[in-house]
Amino acid sequence: MSMPRKVAVIGAGEIGVGWAALCASAGWPVAMFDMNQRTTERAFTEVPRRARGLVALDRATQGMVERGLLEFTQARSLLQAVKDADWVVEAIAEDPVAKQKLFESIELVASPDALLTSSSSSLLPYDIFARCRGLGRCLVTHPLNPPELIPLVEIVPGERTTPAAVERALDYLRALGRMPILIRKPVPGYVVGRIAAAVWRECIDLVLQGVIDVPDLDRAVSLGPALGWASAGPHLTYHLAAGQGGVTAFLQHLLASFERLWEGNLATWQKLDPGEQRRLTQAIEKAYAGKVEMLREARDRRLAAILRALEQSRAAGPG
Amino acid sequence: MSMPRKVAVIGAGEIGVGWAALCASAGWPVAMFDMNQRTTERAFTEVPRRARGLVALDRATQGMVERGLLEFTQARSLLQAVKDADWVVEAIAEDPVAKQKLFESIELVASPDALLTSSSSSLLPYDIFARCRGLGRCLVTHPLNPPELIPLVEIVPGERTTPAAVERALDYLRALGRMPILIRKPVPGYVVGRIAAAVWRECIDLVLQGVIDVPDLDRAVSLGPALGWASAGPHLTYHLAAGQGGVTAFLQHLLASFERLWEGNLATWQKLDPGEQRRLTQAIEKAYAGKVEMLREARDRRLAAILRALEQSRAAGPG
Repeated sequence: MSMPRKVAVIGAGEIGVGWAALCASAGWPVAMFDMNQRTTERAFTEVPRRARGLVALDRATQGMVERGLLEFTQARSLLQAVKDADWVVEAIAEDPVAKQKLFESIELVASPDALLTSSSSSLLPYDIFARCRGLGRCLVTHPLNPPELIPLVEIVPGERTTPAAVERALDYLRALGRMPILIRKPVPGYVVGRIAAAVWRECIDLVLQGVIDVPDLDRAVSLGPALGWASAGPHLTYHLAAGQGGVTAFLQHLLASFERLWEGNLATWQKLDPGEQRRLTQAIEKAYAGKVEMLREARDRRLAAILRALEQSRAAGPG
Repeated sequence: MSMPRKVAVIGAGEIGVGWAALCASAGWPVAMFDMNQRTTERAFTEVPRRARGLVALDRATQGMVERGLLEFTQARSLLQAVKDADWVVEAIAEDPVAKQKLFESIELVASPDALLTSSSSSLLPYDIFARCRGLGRCLVTHPLNPPELIPLVEIVPGERTTPAAVERALDYLRALGRMPILIRKPVPGYVVGRIAAAVWRECIDLVLQGVIDVPDLDRAVSLGPALGWASAGPHLTYHLAAGQGGVTAFLQHLLASFERLWEGNLATWQKLDPGEQRRLTQAIEKAYAGKVEMLREARDRRLAAILRALEQSRAAGPG
């Protein structure tokens, strides 16, 4: 198991806080920095709360979490955060120029052998690290939200990222109990972002068209296709949907139905205009009125319960 | 709890077998018929196997399953299957002309107050029931695969379906432990089919482009977005992704990233040409070589484990 001497998390929003909680829950020292002083202060209560939440959810042990939190520090400068860190995790807003500038600064102060990763969910490595001189140790490690619970992390190396840097990122992530997946060719949105964008456009469209309301749509996805995909990815799902004949039989019977939808029945708009944004926001806020924290806790409980169930089911038998 | 005197399942493929196993597992009498004699015969061993499988998966009790299987019959004709049935479930291939003809025949022999439902995954009610005279009792009840495990059922009434018929379908489905969701406006593919078509096109595209291989893509979806969506539907996911600010804050920070993908970065092709079909089929068969039954059993174990976890988690707390 690899363990960095220290992890520097730069950016204390939802994703940065999640990374810090995850690393702390593994007993790793974390230094956190955000340009916004108030955000950094909020993180100083949020990270312990979320790390301890993992104990309540049975995803970490109390001893390890408390050990990690003893070495969780709030840095007063980028230099202080990054100094002595073996791994620098960037988790600021999805703005290529801001990320470029940040990595330019990080490179100046980081230890020469520190691994530098971005949590970007869609930008190409080239656009993020454009101002770095040493690209060998730079790559994207994109977690999902919340990073301390969802195991998947997309690994997106740039053209000049060294295999050793990729290996080191994989080691760190596996030591954190993550499931890193290597993206072989950088494309905007990688894999998860593209699938999520395709799904959300269709979901928004169905709501704005009046086919279904927000709570029913969310329920339909949760208790329908998402359950299926959580048990077997999309390709395996269809390989198993037509009996012994596998995917060949499935395509024979159902490709035409998919093609009827692909041929112009799915949403293709490219922007949400302000009126549509307002209608969507209102519909979502009405469906989930005024209780973000409670809804989040309930979601995290379900997520942790599903993770335990999958682990037990995998431990119980082959496949 | 409503219980039909008898359910007639017409069509003994994967979906028909699943409906029959589900109804039998609730102790309901089922008569099954398929135009193809061999398919009917296969169903006669498959339905008991899958109904008993639900006991092993802790989704049904043995007593109820055996009671149902005592009254599971293989009909020698459409008339024999449909006679005395309170609910006729069509589950033949996704072919509008075949479905129209079948419902025309069913109408001639079914009891006048039987509920008639189609398991179509994408056709409009009008196209399915075009040759029926009495449209009041006709509607689509679309299950996912496998119907005996995944709770979601899409309810798609036609223009002339009576509210009483919709209520009766909802009653039957709830008595079977399903989660029926009403589609307010019929569109091709309803809700699930459109989302699935958007997802699969993007997944196929990523594989054919060489961004990721089939097993990694399936793992990425399973251990990433599908876990998230199974715990909270897409809209709720984004409402919870930006802290207290909810969906408003999320759109502020991330709508631009989605729009960059919607603006021409996602797959838009409408057909899989024969060469692409072959490449896709080979990639899926290579990834999951020669073990449909074993993979299916493992998938069903994971699915049942997730369902139990969600039920326990919902029973444990609010939200």
